[in-house]
Amino acid sequence: MTVTEAAPRQIQLTEDGQLKHFLTLDGLGQPLLTEILDTAESFIEVGARSIKKVPLLRGRTVVNLFFESSTRTRSTFELAAKRLSADVLNLDINTSATSKGESLSDTLLNLEAMASDMFVIRHSQSGAQHFIAAAVTPGVAIINAGDGRHAHPTQAMLDMLTIRQHKGRFEGLRVAIVGDVLHSRVARSQIRALNTLGAEEIRVIAPATLLPKDVEALGCKVFYNLQQGLRDVDVIIMLRLQRERMEGALLPSEKEFYKLYGLSVEKLAYAKPDAIVMHPGPINRGVEIESAVADGPQSVILNQVTNGIAVRMAVMSMAMSGQVAERAAGGQS
Amino acid sequence: MTVTEAAPRQIQLTEDGQLKHFLTLDGLGQPLLTEILDTAESFIEVGARSIKKVPLLRGRTVVNLFFESSTRTRSTFELAAKRLSADVLNLDINTSATSKGESLSDTLLNLEAMASDMFVIRHSQSGAQHFIAAAVTPGVAIINAGDGRHAHPTQAMLDMLTIRQHKGRFEGLRVAIVGDVLHSRVARSQIRALNTLGAEEIRVIAPATLLPKDVEALGCKVFYNLQQGLRDVDVIIMLRLQRERMEGALLPSEKEFYKLYGLSVEKLAYAKPDAIVMHPGPINRGVEIESAVADGPQSVILNQVTNGIAVRMAVMSMAMSGQVAERAAGGQS
Amino acid sequence: MTVTEAAPRQIQLTEDGQLKHFLTLDGLGQPLLTEILDTAESFIEVGARSIKKVPLLRGRTVVNLFFESSTRTRSTFELAAKRLSADVLNLDINTSATSKGESLSDTLLNLEAMASDMFVIRHSQSGAQHFIAAAVTPGVAIINAGDGRHAHPTQAMLDMLTIRQHKGRFEGLRVAIVGDVLHSRVARSQIRALNTLGAEEIRVIAPATLLPKDVEALGCKVFYNLQQGLRDVDVIIMLRLQRERMEGALLPSEKEFYKLYGLSVEKLAYAKPDAIVMHPGPINRGVEIESAVADGPQSVILNQVTNGIAVRMAVMSMAMSGQVAERAAGGQS
Repeated sequence: MTVTEAAPRQIQLTEDGQLKHFLTLDGLGQPLLTEILDTAESFIEVGARSIKKVPLLRGRTVVNLFFESSTRTRSTFELAAKRLSADVLNLDINTSATSKGESLSDTLLNLEAMASDMFVIRHSQSGAQHFIAAAVTPGVAIINAGDGRHAHPTQAMLDMLTIRQHKGRFEGLRVAIVGDVLHSRVARSQIRALNTLGAEEIRVIAPATLLPKDVEALGCKVFYNLQQGLRDVDVIIMLRLQRERMEGALLPSEKEFYKLYGLSVEKLAYAKPDAIVMHPGPINRGVEIESAVADGPQSVILNQVTNGIAVRMAVMSMAMSGQVAERAAGGQS
Repeated sequence: MTVTEAAPRQIQLTEDGQLKHFLTLDGLGQPLLTEILDTAESFIEVGARSIKKVPLLRGRTVVNLFFESSTRTRSTFELAAKRLSADVLNLDINTSATSKGESLSDTLLNLEAMASDMFVIRHSQSGAQHFIAAAVTPGVAIINAGDGRHAHPTQAMLDMLTIRQHKGRFEGLRVAIVGDVLHSRVARSQIRALNTLGAEEIRVIAPATLLPKDVEALGCKVFYNLQQGLRDVDVIIMLRLQRERMEGALLPSEKEFYKLYGLSVEKLAYAKPDAIVMHPGPINRGVEIESAVADGPQSVILNQVTNGIAVRMAVMSMAMSGQVAERAAGGQS
Repeated sequence: MTVTEAAPRQIQLTEDGQLKHFLTLDGLGQPLLTEILDTAESFIEVGARSIKKVPLLRGRTVVNLFFESSTRTRSTFELAAKRLSADVLNLDINTSATSKGESLSDTLLNLEAMASDMFVIRHSQSGAQHFIAAAVTPGVAIINAGDGRHAHPTQAMLDMLTIRQHKGRFEGLRVAIVGDVLHSRVARSQIRALNTLGAEEIRVIAPATLLPKDVEALGCKVFYNLQQGLRDVDVIIMLRLQRERMEGALLPSEKEFYKLYGLSVEKLAYAKPDAIVMHPGPINRGVEIESAVADGPQSVILNQVTNGIAVRMAVMSMAMSGQVAERAAGGQS
């Protein structure tokens, strides 16, 4: 990981503490995360209108720069930008100049020179977006749409919004994160968000082979047994199992994993009766979760998707405002 | 085929008989088809303006969901949606979540949760769009852009608009459909439309191997000889020959097919002198049709393309209105 | 080459001498090129605004038709069109109807029938856009985004804008074009533009194997030695080296080429102290140019990119105006 604890705050925020890039939740305080959730809440209403548009990014150019393909995440960012009235450019990096031997840095300088206002970036390398944000021209906002195993902060924030909508608060909540924590940038961001927002207890439930070594240092309790870990929790967050992991020695088999860590109706009964069940999607039914649970009354999986657009609209509009404010301040000094 | 005669009407129409999905022409009456043609006619004028926009779908999100790729059809739907002022999301399903093992049903639920208002869907499986329309949230419209061998209703309606523009009426018209009827969803929809709109006689002209078994039950006369079939017709609709069929035993060779069923200037002379010639495109010149005919004075092939945008604008705006009306009615009850 | 000296003027201009297509710089006079530069200059300001939009092409449909893929050029045209408020359709021709055996001509007729107003076309065949412009319906503008080895006129004009911004004039300027002139449509268009705009001296610097036979007839001085060629020049334009050329016998090796023709800090010293360094991108660092030069104070490479959007906006809006004016004039006669 190339990002230190201290650095991100500086680079993500204006001198007044406004968001200007959105790279990681590290270094962002509870008031700012709450502001993101409140702003997103106001955009939920926009999505329910017949005219789903607000003019906050009108005439702005947003470039979706996906070095790892992801139709789902890219689509939600594209829709979020369009509902903010931005012009959107989708760049498939496999077919672009980088394949002609151009460096990442040159590609970005070029896109910047096209007067782009915001880059939404997914990259397989941890810290790539941080590197880019450090180099980018003032006025241009960088949004992290997932970097390596490091962070996926918009996913974590849409999860927080979903929890807040259903539970009304974070204080006193017991939250279990179940599955492949080791390879999950989502889990890292969730743990950070839950700690910052004041959840009472964060549990990670996984076989030892799928847990990072220092996981307790992140502020979690570790459980190797699903039933024990679920006892009395308010929120269950299932992680996606990367099927590629099966090939290594980390996991016995899908069937074996499901038997031990898959969320069935029977296992769900160990949690509080009003516990909510979350999953970032796409779901592997019968591997991480039983269909009866995914489609059941405690599942809030589709709310997460709806909240994804609203949270991305919030983060994009806040970062753009921060850039504008900083530029205006810079112009005065 | 999973769609019965009776079912489609119910699912496609509101209680008042307004269009709310557009899946098939089965079950739609002459007044509704005429309304589609009249609405499309009004959009022809929009396409001729320098500002080719109407605000009917402003702020709406239209998702083009093509499980079979088709640049041509997808482009006309994309342009139609943009001219209605909608935001458009094009999804290439090969690279999307389904390749990560997600079910069609989960993919759709997710897209729906993104507050999409309309899905334009092409799928290789007959009835897929019907299945989706039955499952989708109220308020979301489904438009069929071609399903398996079943239906391609917007193509049939743009053909009807083209016929009406040139002939002024359907009553008394003799229409010949020539070529691979067996594999053609277009032909199925055309036969249905022509019957509903009151054409006098519908002929299908093809070798026996390229005709469905029950084709006469659809309300057609069968001809195995092109010259005989063309005698005194007002409209000739050539079908596209799928070259893949050649490999099976269904057809002797392109050359042989052209000799027997290709539309040459000489054969065209058997039809009425003012007969019009249609083709859904893309044309295989010298396989289905001689260039002198495709480019000749009786060809209305490019009118069909222009009408394609107008008909798609009509169907999309009508279905959205129907969804809005139903939602409003539901809200009152 | 299918385009003669005389023909392009006729086809590109209205009777009043307004631009209506933009295919080549051949036949365009100094006043028109200056008008393009002045118009582009006014759009530079639009790119610097927070709302980067002007309504000049509102409701117009612009189709990007790339028969050769180029993310960079296509993106700048897409952004230019969107900032002019047009609706944009990107067509990947590899996956489109042409792969089903449709001819180029039929593909275009179809797109035209969709009421498109402008085609931005890149094609590997020299003269393809000229052929299309000759065949297209009146009212539809054709913009050349690069054809074979023939021309890339928007690239040349953005280079001219960059030179004018930094040097204030063309009179008295000595300009060196360095590298693979033989395969470069960019160089051909640059030489034409520099001659028309009144540059004092145009030098081409390359090994004999990378120079066209008739290059002096275009109005250039030839140098085989970089140091000699750079002496006292005001502007240095580096060309992109096509790595594919290495495989033929035209070039010894990248290393050898760089040694002789690569622009290093040391070699740059032969030019005037205030000489500017240009490159169309993407850059091969260490092949055509040393990083210290590409990133150095004399480099204006990123200005070129910014100017690329402005020049494309200028050409697109001028050609559309010309088409409208011609149509209006035609309607009166």
